[in-house]
Amino acid sequence: MKDIINVYAGIFNATLDEYLLNRLDCPSPVKEAVAYAMTGSGKRLRPMLCYLGAEFSGKSCEDVYDFALAVELIHGYSLIHDDMPCMDNDTLRRGKPTVHVRFGEGVALLAGDAMLNGAYEILFEKVNSSREVLAASYIAKYAGTTGMIGGQCVDITDNNGAGYDENALLSMYSKKTSGLLIAALLSGAVSCGCTEKEEIDLLNFADYMGVAYQITDDILDCTSTEEVLGKNIGSDVKGDKKTYVSLFGLDAAKEKAKDYTKRAVNCISGYGEKSEKLIELCHYLIGRNY
Amino acid sequence: MKDIINVYAGIFNATLDEYLLNRLDCPSPVKEAVAYAMTGSGKRLRPMLCYLGAEFSGKSCEDVYDFALAVELIHGYSLIHDDMPCMDNDTLRRGKPTVHVRFGEGVALLAGDAMLNGAYEILFEKVNSSREVLAASYIAKYAGTTGMIGGQCVDITDNNGAGYDENALLSMYSKKTSGLLIAALLSGAVSCGCTEKEEIDLLNFADYMGVAYQITDDILDCTSTEEVLGKNIGSDVKGDKKTYVSLFGLDAAKEKAKDYTKRAVNCISGYGEKSEKLIELCHYLIGRNY
Repeated sequence: MKDIINVYAGIFNATLDEYLLNRLDCPSPVKEAVAYAMTGSGKRLRPMLCYLGAEFSGKSCEDVYDFALAVELIHGYSLIHDDMPCMDNDTLRRGKPTVHVRFGEGVALLAGDAMLNGAYEILFEKVNSSREVLAASYIAKYAGTTGMIGGQCVDITDNNGAGYDENALLSMYSKKTSGLLIAALLSGAVSCGCTEKEEIDLLNFADYMGVAYQITDDILDCTSTEEVLGKNIGSDVKGDKKTYVSLFGLDAAKEKAKDYTKRAVNCISGYGEKSEKLIELCHYLIGRNY
Repeated sequence: MKDIINVYAGIFNATLDEYLLNRLDCPSPVKEAVAYAMTGSGKRLRPMLCYLGAEFSGKSCEDVYDFALAVELIHGYSLIHDDMPCMDNDTLRRGKPTVHVRFGEGVALLAGDAMLNGAYEILFEKVNSSREVLAASYIAKYAGTTGMIGGQCVDITDNNGAGYDENALLSMYSKKTSGLLIAALLSGAVSCGCTEKEEIDLLNFADYMGVAYQITDDILDCTSTEEVLGKNIGSDVKGDKKTYVSLFGLDAAKEKAKDYTKRAVNCISGYGEKSEKLIELCHYLIGRNY
């Protein structure tokens, strides 16, 4: 699976390079900050999901290059803003100093804004049919207060409070982490013409997978090293954050990640060959070490 | 003119109230921060320009409610992020403590992100024709690194540097301030079907008017009071910012604002009755005291 991930990452990186070189019109040093944040050895999970969504619907990666780019720009902005001192105050990301450490907080703030806005510039230039408008509207919805931003809101405000039960935590993970995975997969599949039934199944698949992914992230935060992950570890503990691991222990977390992976796979196991890569990816992600 | 401004502001405030009450799905306290930032006694200049754009094209305000709302949300987010300590570090806005002072920096950051993303959620739900997609793409373009964010980039990075000539300053004002005025006016006019010639004339009108508006802002920053403006004054001087007034003096600034107002009016003076309100507004804005 790692080879397949690398192939899709390569496809995405070519789109990204072309965007940074020829399409992004932005003054220095914010432009350099955007390039700094976006380049590196990421898994490019969200672009890959967008591509797999297109392939699920019988089309190919190149039909959704701009959707993948938009979703990954949104992911990139969320990391920059999340790392800032007023949020998680992290200093290491993808093996490099975080954007505000390297460029200062003002530039980091604007670079994030530029990436979020830039994602929608790309989408409004791209959309050319009602299917594509619907696909783009899903990106906006699941990146926003119903999805990712909504999860971040709960994360920074409730997280240090007293009560935090399992359902509340899983609901926050579903927004914060599954949100953009849903956006990525649905934008690819919907813009390429999947049915409504398929849309619902893919949404639920990405939702369960995202929660499993986030729990695995919590596990790695306790068990891996900064060298392997390329970002600060133990930061959940540092900030006294409640995570699945801190609330229920490592073993229960591993079980839960497996359980949610199984639920995810069940959503799309009836589609035969066309859902094979998605299922393989989902299994791979909870076994990952980075 | 103030009465007319208040009528349009009233129309906008009704749309805003309905949005905050029924459409904005967002966890506390970020939701409260968004409402706090968006409500108040603003002139609602950008919504008004959007409405006047629609009327210029023979349609009415209600055809562009969502465009006006999106542009004002983008304006609101830019003020929240601009006021933060890593940017202008202002503590007073619209007669109230700024959002980060009232809610903390993390909530302010997320509220801004929520408003920017929310604007595009609204637009993707709204657009239903290629004219409307084009109108929305102008909002994204002129709010982004080509426009407003681009101007902010130059503002925070070059502004304390050595060389800053008149053309560089006016070009920065054109991006930072005219950007969203262009977005507002064009989104209204283009979505309602103006011609390409009209589009260019309206763009140039809003561009010149925006520069005149910003120079008037610089003048008020030196000559008015915090009570009247409802925001910190003298902050340009505090930050050692170069403004038209600090570089060329008060008299030259007043002349320049008049000159740019004249240029703006010239762009649309040939349209007779249908550009009357825009011209009246433009004259009013450089004479304003708030």
